[in-house]
Amino acid sequence: MGHTDNAATPAPHNISDNPRPRTLLSIPEHEADAFFTAESWAELNELCDVVEARPDALQDLECFRDVAQGTSIFITAWGFPRLESERLELAPELRFVMHAASSIQTLVSDEFWAAGIPIAQAGDAMAPSVAELSLTFTLALLRRTPRFDHALRSGADWSDARTAASRPREISGARIGVIGASRTGRRYIDMCRALGAESTVYDPYIHEGDELRAYAADLPEVLSSCDVIAIHAPETPETRGLLGAAELAAIKDGGLLVNTARPALVDEDALYREVSSGRLDAALDVFGNEPLPAGDRWRNLPNVLLTPHLGGATVDSRHRAGWIVVSEVRRFLRGEPLQHALTSDRLKVMG
Amino acid sequence: MGHTDNAATPAPHNISDNPRPRTLLSIPEHEADAFFTAESWAELNELCDVVEARPDALQDLECFRDVAQGTSIFITAWGFPRLESERLELAPELRFVMHAASSIQTLVSDEFWAAGIPIAQAGDAMAPSVAELSLTFTLALLRRTPRFDHALRSGADWSDARTAASRPREISGARIGVIGASRTGRRYIDMCRALGAESTVYDPYIHEGDELRAYAADLPEVLSSCDVIAIHAPETPETRGLLGAAELAAIKDGGLLVNTARPALVDEDALYREVSSGRLDAALDVFGNEPLPAGDRWRNLPNVLLTPHLGGATVDSRHRAGWIVVSEVRRFLRGEPLQHALTSDRLKVMG
Repeated sequence: MGHTDNAATPAPHNISDNPRPRTLLSIPEHEADAFFTAESWAELNELCDVVEARPDALQDLECFRDVAQGTSIFITAWGFPRLESERLELAPELRFVMHAASSIQTLVSDEFWAAGIPIAQAGDAMAPSVAELSLTFTLALLRRTPRFDHALRSGADWSDARTAASRPREISGARIGVIGASRTGRRYIDMCRALGAESTVYDPYIHEGDELRAYAADLPEVLSSCDVIAIHAPETPETRGLLGAAELAAIKDGGLLVNTARPALVDEDALYREVSSGRLDAALDVFGNEPLPAGDRWRNLPNVLLTPHLGGATVDSRHRAGWIVVSEVRRFLRGEPLQHALTSDRLKVMG
Repeated sequence: MGHTDNAATPAPHNISDNPRPRTLLSIPEHEADAFFTAESWAELNELCDVVEARPDALQDLECFRDVAQGTSIFITAWGFPRLESERLELAPELRFVMHAASSIQTLVSDEFWAAGIPIAQAGDAMAPSVAELSLTFTLALLRRTPRFDHALRSGADWSDARTAASRPREISGARIGVIGASRTGRRYIDMCRALGAESTVYDPYIHEGDELRAYAADLPEVLSSCDVIAIHAPETPETRGLLGAAELAAIKDGGLLVNTARPALVDEDALYREVSSGRLDAALDVFGNEPLPAGDRWRNLPNVLLTPHLGGATVDSRHRAGWIVVSEVRRFLRGEPLQHALTSDRLKVMG
């Protein structure tokens, strides 16, 4: 373990010793073909000697030892074993972890941070994808397509279907309230504005000089003044339960709630009460009890639009993540500053 | 009948004779409150002496005669009786017809055009609304939300729901093919471009110097090269059946079809075959047999998104139409050129 600090600039890898360091690529089976195009795969293989192993196989210590031995770089995604002392001792030559997905909460440990191994993640790849799903949900709710579509599918008379919702609204001129000035939230705001919406954002960490400062408001104002509330904050101890029963009650009648971020930010029972009463409509990609059971209460409401936690899972998002992996591995090998590095301090704010 | 030509500039109404000419406002009951805000209603009543009658009541000739007598302006929407000789004779002082909705096909007649009464319509109010629904449909299909939502609602296992569609796509970078460079089509193209999409448009009437010329292509190229096909052409003898079985077959596998325009542009049986086989997904606001019967075949496909012909029916669209009515009536009374006038020649191209 050569590194003893958390700096974003790693010590340069000694390229003359090993021009193509052994690199473990560990992506779940069903995502294996999603990340790399022919071009990014070729570039990755020019940079390093890639060995592949599925994360489920690596749960086994023997298997992990065999693969980790002599390996300098781990490229991880979902389901990789947590990097605690036992695992780190089996990977004595590990110099860099490149997480091709977003959250590293289940990957890192105190021992990992103490070892000072740099780690980067590809969350930036997902931000446009999640923001677009949030926009998709926003337009659907403003146009009340879930209510109309579900009414027609349930066999309602045409005239009843036409009055299954109040009159649709356009995004142009709508007031959009955004919870969290994250990468995703910013992207979402840009798209809503490009379509003519007004936006207001709640985020206590918007600093002076941030262009979003002009649109910042406190939480009660955002909730009571906006037609749509879209959640784009990370899950942290501070944001957990941010929208409780009182906050949801402050949203105006006919309000629309979009959550493509984290379920824990909203009191799900309170939200269910508001949506099942018909006072609010909602579009949800994330749920407290994933995988959502077959008979789950959310599955039967006419005024919700549901997707099974796929906000970041587009063709385009995975390809961007593949390119972030290639670029970041190249920077690491050249000793250049990483662009997507994480530290334990940053993690506390990012969630 | 003072006017004998179809020019967009009416002879000035003699304001000194009658400062607030009697004006019939005839909007169906369920839309009666949708068009005018307090402000536009006040302005309309400053301009003219408004009398109201429902279009269904006016089917009766006696009732029509009582209301039409001494009336200079008709403000119409849906369901107004066709203006043929019999009706025109009962409205000898009629000088201007302002249609607050879009299509005037069921309103006008040869006798009406021969009478030379100027007519305007408020279709411009609907273009942004229809374009936004088309964008809403486009995003939904690219993200495959109908398949995912319908799978979750039908009780599918979480993992089955996650694979109920191929991997979602983003609009940024998608290729959007637009049939028809109408007002609506142009607005839709602008919004798709603002979100990063590439667009190609088929319209044989795009003239030289039109900025869309650079993006124009013939129909086979648009169909075979695009991820999304969005229909924005009017129904005319030329466009009827434009997308038949062969044209639909030319769309690539996994292609997405959006129709918020007119059902007659597409061979609906052929489209049903392509969608029910799963080769194409579709989002439809218009249907050949409206009102769609309760057991209609479209209502049960997992890969369609349905709305009951509400593309133009937003809060915002109706308010814009109300303002167009006020502005156009004011122009007519001042003898200024109308901005939304129609002629029988223009009608043949507009549909």
